[in-house]
Amino acid sequence: MTIENISINKSFGGWHKQYSHHSETLNCNMRFAIFLPPQVSNGEKVPVLYWLSGLTCTDENFMQKAGAHRVAAELGIAIVAPDTSPRGEGVADDEGYDLGQGAGFYVNATQAPWNRHYHMYDYVVHELPKLIESTFPVSDKRSIAGHSMGGHGALTIGMLNPQRYRAMSAFSPISNPVNCPWGQKAFTAYLGKDTDSWRSHDASELMRQATQFIPVKVDQGESDDFLAEQLKPETLEAAAKASGYPLELTLHEGYDHSYYFIAGFIEDHLRFHARHLNG
Amino acid sequence: MTIENISINKSFGGWHKQYSHHSETLNCNMRFAIFLPPQVSNGEKVPVLYWLSGLTCTDENFMQKAGAHRVAAELGIAIVAPDTSPRGEGVADDEGYDLGQGAGFYVNATQAPWNRHYHMYDYVVHELPKLIESTFPVSDKRSIAGHSMGGHGALTIGMLNPQRYRAMSAFSPISNPVNCPWGQKAFTAYLGKDTDSWRSHDASELMRQATQFIPVKVDQGESDDFLAEQLKPETLEAAAKASGYPLELTLHEGYDHSYYFIAGFIEDHLRFHARHLNG
Repeated sequence: MTIENISINKSFGGWHKQYSHHSETLNCNMRFAIFLPPQVSNGEKVPVLYWLSGLTCTDENFMQKAGAHRVAAELGIAIVAPDTSPRGEGVADDEGYDLGQGAGFYVNATQAPWNRHYHMYDYVVHELPKLIESTFPVSDKRSIAGHSMGGHGALTIGMLNPQRYRAMSAFSPISNPVNCPWGQKAFTAYLGKDTDSWRSHDASELMRQATQFIPVKVDQGESDDFLAEQLKPETLEAAAKASGYPLELTLHEGYDHSYYFIAGFIEDHLRFHARHLNG
Repeated sequence: MTIENISINKSFGGWHKQYSHHSETLNCNMRFAIFLPPQVSNGEKVPVLYWLSGLTCTDENFMQKAGAHRVAAELGIAIVAPDTSPRGEGVADDEGYDLGQGAGFYVNATQAPWNRHYHMYDYVVHELPKLIESTFPVSDKRSIAGHSMGGHGALTIGMLNPQRYRAMSAFSPISNPVNCPWGQKAFTAYLGKDTDSWRSHDASELMRQATQFIPVKVDQGESDDFLAEQLKPETLEAAAKASGYPLELTLHEGYDHSYYFIAGFIEDHLRFHARHLNG
């Protein structure tokens, strides 16, 4: 695997770096960003939080807007932010912002034309961590978090792989995609009309049936324009009650779906992950 | 003066808001952003830090990327971020990123076609504070800061109006525009070929001749690609020595010209301003 560095910025004593590499899983070139905290200078192998972004985002949104580097530098945590879909001229796309490039939904597509490139689940769970752990001074302690579509990704990937992640968290996740317009559109395209295959990528379904638990924290703004139609945290909460999943769900008065909300509470998420990554 | 709210985001218990208004000074519609800290809910009138951004920026870059809301919310400081030039279809522009829209340089243009709209000095010093102080729960305690072209703006405006600002600070300012390509290009266009008129907008010239001082803090990354050719902090430092200006200039190993540098040290700047705004 070859990997090419394309930018470096010193940040809070650590380093924000962007790389491009050819992904075998996605069959295209991909860019990702990594924040390496200052502790790596001492030869420490640091744990890694994977951050999955929402619709239309790239590796850059979280790194530029979340204000996460300050606390990650203090706690000694690396953060990896992949792109939100395969990219490039030969990659299938759609005119909508909520399907195709920028909207991979962290599943493995089974339907043409999407199945040629759209295998974000395998990329995030397998190929990317393998690349990260063989390239950077990091340990194999991992956790996962995300926002909106990426919150859906973090929760489903965490619950499908409890042995691979110490903890998971989400801001404003699409909690029940089989029952909302964003999820139904994407799953129909990527997974086909047979809704049976959708359930293993629905956080509420997985949480309702879970028997193995990892720590999970979810924050949701009450003034989020997408709350009622697309996000449905009450479904996730009911699922957690049904299975006894130890979900920490907090609603926040007045906050919306933007990065201003994420920036305001990312410190809580990073300290939550650090407790489980370093515990 | 009418003013239209175009967005609101709750952020760290306070509010980030964008507004548009017709500027008499600039003869066009302008957008600005304001962060109001939570203290305004108690009926407190808070002091205001004016932030001037760099080339190509709008009101959004600082608000989204600097991570300033957290500390401003703690300290009870409002932040106002104007745009970096007049804007719109009828406003003169240039193909270069360093002249015209997005590159107003915080001067009053005297040359055609720029003199019809480009009066960013008067807008920032007079019209905008008047609008802010008559619209929002803020006091008339002001300070000023900025980055790159906006660092030049903050230092020159602060030194030309020491009675109006309690303190000034800059990240990576264009410290001696009369002697660098960015400054020479902009000043030739906006102020004309007679370089005498340029001197009153050159931070190093003003600092060398200053007899009245306000607190000033400047931070500069040593790995900034623009350091030697465009920024020239050593000229500012020599000017401060000549006049006895109490300049706190700090160089930072490894940091570049990006918002990652600003985010890393904005807390120091906000605490510096708070000491002088609340003192």
